Amino acid sequence: MMTTDTIKNISKSPVTGKVYEIPGTLYDKEGIDTFIAMHPGKKVVVVQGLGFVGSVMGLVVANALTEEYAVIGIDLPTPNSYWKICSINEGIFPVIASDPKIDQYYQNVLKKKNYYATYDAYAFSKADVVVVDVNLDVKKQSSDKKDLEGYSVDLSPFKKAIEEIGTNCKEDVLVLVETTVPPGTSKKIVRPILEECLTKRGLPVDKIKVGHSYERVMPGPKYIDSIQNFYRVFAGTDEKSSEAVEIFLRTVIRTDEYPLTRLGNTNATEMAKVLENSFRAMNIAFMVEWSRFAEEAGVDIYEVVNAIRMRPTHKNIMLPGLGVGGYCLTKDPLLASWARMNLFGSEEKLGQSEKGVHINDKMPLYAFEYLQSQYKGSLEGKKILLLGVSYLNDVGDTRYTPVEGFYDQLEIEGCEIVLHDPHVKYWEEKDVWIKQDLDELLKESYDFIVITTGHKEYRNNESLINKLLNLPVTFVYDTIGVLTNEEIKRLAAKHIVKVIGRGDL
Amino acid sequence: MMTTDTIKNISKSPVTGKVYEIPGTLYDKEGIDTFIAMHPGKKVVVVQGLGFVGSVMGLVVANALTEEYAVIGIDLPTPNSYWKICSINEGIFPVIASDPKIDQYYQNVLKKKNYYATYDAYAFSKADVVVVDVNLDVKKQSSDKKDLEGYSVDLSPFKKAIEEIGTNCKEDVLVLVETTVPPGTSKKIVRPILEECLTKRGLPVDKIKVGHSYERVMPGPKYIDSIQNFYRVFAGTDEKSSEAVEIFLRTVIRTDEYPLTRLGNTNATEMAKVLENSFRAMNIAFMVEWSRFAEEAGVDIYEVVNAIRMRPTHKNIMLPGLGVGGYCLTKDPLLASWARMNLFGSEEKLGQSEKGVHINDKMPLYAFEYLQSQYKGSLEGKKILLLGVSYLNDVGDTRYTPVEGFYDQLEIEGCEIVLHDPHVKYWEEKDVWIKQDLDELLKESYDFIVITTGHKEYRNNESLINKLLNLPVTFVYDTIGVLTNEEIKRLAAKHIVKVIGRGDL
Repeated sequence: MMTTDTIKNISKSPVTGKVYEIPGTLYDKEGIDTFIAMHPGKKVVVVQGLGFVGSVMGLVVANALTEEYAVIGIDLPTPNSYWKICSINEGIFPVIASDPKIDQYYQNVLKKKNYYATYDAYAFSKADVVVVDVNLDVKKQSSDKKDLEGYSVDLSPFKKAIEEIGTNCKEDVLVLVETTVPPGTSKKIVRPILEECLTKRGLPVDKIKVGHSYERVMPGPKYIDSIQNFYRVFAGTDEKSSEAVEIFLRTVIRTDEYPLTRLGNTNATEMAKVLENSFRAMNIAFMVEWSRFAEEAGVDIYEVVNAIRMRPTHKNIMLPGLGVGGYCLTKDPLLASWARMNLFGSEEKLGQSEKGVHINDKMPLYAFEYLQSQYKGSLEGKKILLLGVSYLNDVGDTRYTPVEGFYDQLEIEGCEIVLHDPHVKYWEEKDVWIKQDLDELLKESYDFIVITTGHKEYRNNESLINKLLNLPVTFVYDTIGVLTNEEIKRLAAKHIVKVIGRGDL
Repeated sequence: MMTTDTIKNISKSPVTGKVYEIPGTLYDKEGIDTFIAMHPGKKVVVVQGLGFVGSVMGLVVANALTEEYAVIGIDLPTPNSYWKICSINEGIFPVIASDPKIDQYYQNVLKKKNYYATYDAYAFSKADVVVVDVNLDVKKQSSDKKDLEGYSVDLSPFKKAIEEIGTNCKEDVLVLVETTVPPGTSKKIVRPILEECLTKRGLPVDKIKVGHSYERVMPGPKYIDSIQNFYRVFAGTDEKSSEAVEIFLRTVIRTDEYPLTRLGNTNATEMAKVLENSFRAMNIAFMVEWSRFAEEAGVDIYEVVNAIRMRPTHKNIMLPGLGVGGYCLTKDPLLASWARMNLFGSEEKLGQSEKGVHINDKMPLYAFEYLQSQYKGSLEGKKILLLGVSYLNDVGDTRYTPVEGFYDQLEIEGCEIVLHDPHVKYWEEKDVWIKQDLDELLKESYDFIVITTGHKEYRNNESLINKLLNLPVTFVYDTIGVLTNEEIKRLAAKHIVKVIGRGDL
């Protein structure tokens, strides 16, 4: 990771490989004024945070359905983010995604020149609407890899981001929080900070509008649709705010097909988001002990789950896997539990939901231990090919990928690890560049080949199976259940094949 | 409950009120032979157990789609079951249900005279197929109402039932287990017992067929359809058994519309059933702590859940309620966990799934404590009307109803309890007859009126709301979320209204 002193002042784009020097003075008033002057009469929307959500949300707002906006993306001039600002202003979109609409929308934006990026908080002074898409992270204690239950929530970076808005914004701006926040945040934290800033500036506090609405972004083949063509839940901190949020969302989201749902207050919308994700995380955690039981009982858990899914009320029962990743399911239950105790003074945490996260966090370790128990010998010096580093199939997103925990264990054992992922060029968290050409990689031999992400490139791929059959005897380990029974039988004729949850197969 | 010596030898029908004396000698050879002689050439199907599943399964088999069967229902001559045998032979079906198909099917059976009932195991000697629908219960320790975590599984009644078959059956009978059993039971318990019995009788053991297939019965308005028009999962203990089960099910179930799913072995089908129900139980348990958090945060959990349900992957997220009842969700996770440790020698239980049951078991107690905390004063001598005793809306089934735990607490406090349920005439577990006429009951006044089951009679019922408004000031407590916001507002103008999970409303 780029943390050493020598590279503190540079920011490298994983999309192009280009390196940018971070400027010493952070002043972009002319840039912002020039951009706005190009769009007279248009409302200005500032999107705060140019991550997986914000950068694409900016793109969607710049392609709004019933209004022409001038959009400014703003982020911090850090090594991790500065390149995104430069990239947007150079006409290269900072996100690689399989969704063809991304390029289509971006080409449209380049024509209209209505999406600018900056690091200067001066932008907030021009905003009619600020959409908050900054991160709000949970810090998990991970010094002891086997103790995964401690965590802390530090709101200060988020509060600082809100202060930046309050210090610069117009008195009647709409601040729409989209970040997944602990329930209670808009009412108890965002609005008070903004009011305090306005008061300090001698401005009235009764004109500002603060609301919350959460996206349900899936950074994959339907990236844009997951923002624009999907149900939205929203609320305001007062009636005026609710109305302003609704008016704004109607210009951006296809609300005719996906009606908006307005809830009674922002506590409710904030809770809805983390409850959704906790439900999902818990559904995964629930299956962990059952897939182990299935192994003990010689049962193929995949055929059992597929039989159960015939029942309409049970369609979303999950399958086993390597673990849970991504930015939401790994932390949202903890945000909620933290809020219950810290913002609402409850003496009880959300114990079950926290437990679900802890169970999921241990899955990569279990997958590793399963490998050890099946292989028996030492793993030191063994050459291992991991197929997939993304946390989700068909997506290039490595945030909190469970492959990391598995990879770390292999590193500790002294394995030689080779990585493949068709959707990830650069693994930011590990500062590793990933191989893309699987055919090339399969010309070499390995002690282990482990399927760690369920990308479609690994599914029903006749040529892949044939290449594997041409390799010397290998331990093929499918942690995801990508291989079919037929493929397992073919491979098992030559190799040792193990699949988590497949029982006697 | 009918446990005193004086009533040991009688069995009373809750359907008709008629009392039957249990005979001293249990001999019905002539009855069985006469019945079979009436149906020459027909295959004989014996359904063991005449409970909520068996009695209706017998009805469905007697109305099979592509074959004419002679059906014999068999149960024990106990106070709880003997009346069912008499009732069937007198032409009165022993189950009250809102499904009109029940009567239609039964009228057809009365015409064809092809459904007989008995207590004499001699029936098994005539069977081509035995369908096992006996209960297999989990005993929960309940002496201390607050310690709900201990439980035990006693297989002896189930084993005895299987021995009855083995001692009498033909050597090539098909024994189809439908009872929800601990995974492993068909292979490790049923088949060995049957083989042992056959060996003792000097018969070969290689002709018998043993399989498992579970029903998904819902005793409500779609009672028959839930057996006949629904997906079935099945497996046999060997290839021959699997085929025999499939042939039999195809004659009974509408498999053209609801294809059968054959799994690799009976461990898998047995696991599928308890996994299904554990998933459901856990989904309910998951919401318990969230609805409390919602109350703390002034959030209406109903509007939050309805917003989340817009998302296709989250449609089955549950709402809060009084608790979980019925024969399946309250015990199946425990059966599974027991099997993991006792039939497959695992050192680990299914901890999360067990936890789900315990959380759900505590819900009625929580609902009671919530009432106490809201009312503050003593409940002694207060007159309370409970609306609903069934465990599920629109169904007359009181097995393990959560209303029982709530009722018990009110009794301990010395309340005067009045019960209403349009679907339950007689509450077997409490030996109480239930009032059916709500209008009559609402002519009296009460200190508390508590909605304990979500029957449609209590929903959107303008006349009910008006009658409540005519009563003196009452504490109206909705544990299920039956009342709409509009109704709550109207009632709150006069009464004190509390709804679990509705936050500030």
